[in-house]
Amino acid sequence: MKLTDITLIVSLALSLAANGQEALQFKTSDTSPRVNDDRTVTFSLLAPAADSVKVTGNFAGSPLTMTKDAAGRWTATTEALSPDLYTYALEIDGVRAIDPSNAYVMRDIASLSNPVIVPGGNADLFMPRDVPHGTVAKVWYDSKALGGQRRMTVYTPAGYEADTTRRYPVLYLLHGKGGDEDAWSELGRAVQILDNLTAAGKAEPMIVVMPNGNANQTAAPGQTSEGFYTPDIDRSDAPQWKFEDSFPEIVSFTDSLYRTIADKEHRAIAGLSMGGGHSWRISMTNPDMFDYVGLFSPAVRWNGTNVDSEAGDPQLVGPLSRQFADAPSLYLIAIGKDDFLYGINASYRRLLDSNGFKYDYMETPGGHTWTNWRNYLCEFVPKLFRDN
Amino acid sequence: MKLTDITLIVSLALSLAANGQEALQFKTSDTSPRVNDDRTVTFSLLAPAADSVKVTGNFAGSPLTMTKDAAGRWTATTEALSPDLYTYALEIDGVRAIDPSNAYVMRDIASLSNPVIVPGGNADLFMPRDVPHGTVAKVWYDSKALGGQRRMTVYTPAGYEADTTRRYPVLYLLHGKGGDEDAWSELGRAVQILDNLTAAGKAEPMIVVMPNGNANQTAAPGQTSEGFYTPDIDRSDAPQWKFEDSFPEIVSFTDSLYRTIADKEHRAIAGLSMGGGHSWRISMTNPDMFDYVGLFSPAVRWNGTNVDSEAGDPQLVGPLSRQFADAPSLYLIAIGKDDFLYGINASYRRLLDSNGFKYDYMETPGGHTWTNWRNYLCEFVPKLFRDN
Repeated sequence: MKLTDITLIVSLALSLAANGQEALQFKTSDTSPRVNDDRTVTFSLLAPAADSVKVTGNFAGSPLTMTKDAAGRWTATTEALSPDLYTYALEIDGVRAIDPSNAYVMRDIASLSNPVIVPGGNADLFMPRDVPHGTVAKVWYDSKALGGQRRMTVYTPAGYEADTTRRYPVLYLLHGKGGDEDAWSELGRAVQILDNLTAAGKAEPMIVVMPNGNANQTAAPGQTSEGFYTPDIDRSDAPQWKFEDSFPEIVSFTDSLYRTIADKEHRAIAGLSMGGGHSWRISMTNPDMFDYVGLFSPAVRWNGTNVDSEAGDPQLVGPLSRQFADAPSLYLIAIGKDDFLYGINASYRRLLDSNGFKYDYMETPGGHTWTNWRNYLCEFVPKLFRDN
Repeated sequence: MKLTDITLIVSLALSLAANGQEALQFKTSDTSPRVNDDRTVTFSLLAPAADSVKVTGNFAGSPLTMTKDAAGRWTATTEALSPDLYTYALEIDGVRAIDPSNAYVMRDIASLSNPVIVPGGNADLFMPRDVPHGTVAKVWYDSKALGGQRRMTVYTPAGYEADTTRRYPVLYLLHGKGGDEDAWSELGRAVQILDNLTAAGKAEPMIVVMPNGNANQTAAPGQTSEGFYTPDIDRSDAPQWKFEDSFPEIVSFTDSLYRTIADKEHRAIAGLSMGGGHSWRISMTNPDMFDYVGLFSPAVRWNGTNVDSEAGDPQLVGPLSRQFADAPSLYLIAIGKDDFLYGINASYRRLLDSNGFKYDYMETPGGHTWTNWRNYLCEFVPKLFRDN
C-alpha cells in the first residue's frame, strides 16, 4: 500500500466520528463463521459484556450455546454438517442479532439471517464460480389482470447478448408464501445453480422468469411506494386465484420481450410450496402451455381447500384429464418425508394414480425447507428441454 | 384470512422448530424505527436481559444511549432530522447488531446497517414511487484489459423495452473506494432517483452504467468464486490506473449491447471519491468521449499523489488543455465544506482557474458522505443531455 493510500484511509477513518458520516465498520477481530476441514462450523464473537450468546440456525433443531473465554470471546462449533447453504443468527442476551463478522445477509419474510456454505455436493453449485455468467434483471411488466406494474426477476443465460439470433426455452420459477420475486435468486441460489449447471453441460441454456406470485403485492418489500415496511406472511397470495389466472400475461410479456421459443415444448413451470400450488393449477388450467412441471412441496389446494377432501371431484379430474391427454414430458412431484404438506400430497398422488395420470416422484429426507427446494431445482433443471 | 390459511401458517410455524428449517422470525413486538411527525426518529428494542443498548447512526456524531423501561424495552429518540436516508446500527452490550425490527439492511464495505428515511426534499426521490420503473440488470462483460469477466449494474429507463427503435444517452456512474457495482444502486438510490426524476419530467430518459471500478476485484463481494469473504477496503482500486485505462472497453460494450446514442454529446460520467478521481482522469484522457462530467468529492490524484503538489505540472495541464479545447457542456465539482478532500480540490480549482478552464462548482455543508453524494446526483442528473 502506498503512503497516499494510507493517508486516505486514515483521513477517512478520522472523519467517521463526524456527524453525518455513515457508521462504517472495517473488520471485527473475529473470523466468523469458519468452516473447518471436518465440515463442522465454528462461530465466534467478541462480547465481554454479554451474559449469554447463542447461535440459531437450520443446522440444528435447537440453538447452540456459545461459551466465553477469559478474553470475553464466545465460541461454538456445530457437529459435522452435510454440504449445504445454512442460515443462522445470533442471540445476544436474548436479542436476535446477525453475526457482525459476516457481511452477508439473506431475508426471509421479516427475518434476516447470515449465510454460510459447507461445500460439497449440490452446495458447490450455490456460489458463483469462474464460469460464464448469465444476466439477472429486475423488470417491471404491466398487468392488466391485477392492475399496475409488477416486478419480476429474469435470468438470461451466458451468451444471450453475444448471439442475437439464438432463441431459448423458458423456465417459470415461482416462490412460496411469504416470498417474492427475489426469493429464488437469493435464498434459492437459482442464478448460481443455472450458471454452474449450464457451464458444466448439465443443463440446456434457458431463460428463467421469477415473477412475484402474491396477487396483493406488486413487488418485493422495499421496492414499492410503501417504503421500508415490515414484511408479513399475510401479504402473500390472497386474493385467491387471481395470480394464477393472470399468468398467461406473464408468458405473453416474456415472449414479447425475450428471444424465447414460444411453444409448449420449450416451456417449464416449477415452484415451491404456494408456488408449487400455483405451478400445479396454472399448468392444469393452461394444458397447452407447459411441457415440464415441477411441484416442490406443493400446496395442492383447489377452491380454497386441500385436495385430499375432493379426491374424486370432477372439478379437479376434468382439468387434469385435459392436461394429461397430451401429457407433459415431465411432471415431477418432490417432497420431504417430514413436510407438513406430505399428507395432502400423498392424497393427490393417489388421485393421479387412480386416474392413470403418469408423474415422476421424488421423496427426500427433511421438511418444508430451502435445503430441499434448492436440491429439487438442481435435480429438475438438468431434465428440462432435453427431448426437443 | 381463511381457515385454511391459518392452518397453513400454524403448521409452518410448528415446523420451524424442526432441524433443517430456516430460523424465521415473523414480527418483533417493536415498531422500530418510527419516523415521527416532528421528523424525530424513535428506535425501540425489547431486551430485558441487556445491560446497555445504544444506537449508532449518521444522524448524530456520537451514539444515542437508549433507556430501559420496567418491561425491558429500550428506546431512544433523535433530534428533529433533515430529510434524508439515514443508516444506523444498534450496540447491544458492546456488540454491533442490526435492529431486529427492521428487515432492511445496506452494506458498506464490511459493515451492515439498517436504513430509515425521513421524508421531504430530495429524500422523496429515494424510495420507489408509483411511477414507471426502469429495468436494473446485473451484466457481465469480458475485459481484455483486466482479464476475465467483470460485473456491472445497468439501468435502462422505463419505456426502453416498449419502443425498440428509440436510442438513449448514457451516464456512467462510478463508486468510491470500498464500493462496488452495487453501491450506487443500493446506498446511492440511483435507481429510485432516476425513475422519479424522469417520471417528473426533470431528467431526460437515460441509460445508467455502474461498473465495478476496482481493478483487482471482478465483482461485488459474494458475487465471485471467492465466496462469502470479508470485504476489505484494501481490495479497492489498486493496481493504479488499470481501471481508468480500461474504461473505453466499457463504453464499447455498452454501445454494442444497448440502444445508445454513441457520441460525446450523449455521454456523461460522474463518480464519488475514488470514482470522482476516475471520472476526472477518464474524461481527461478521453477528451472526445464525455460532454458532461460530475466530480463528487473527487480524489483528484495524478501519478499517485495529490494534485496540489503539482499545480503547474504540464503532465496534468496538457491533458486538461486538450479536454477543455472542446470543453464539456458541464464540468461540475461538488464537495462538502468538511470533506477531508476539500483542500486538494481547492488546489485543483486554483489550477483550473489559473488556466482559464471553466467549470461549475457546488459547495455544500457536510463531509465525505452518501448524504452529499445522493444530493449531488439529484442536482447533476437534471442538467444532463438538455442541450441536444
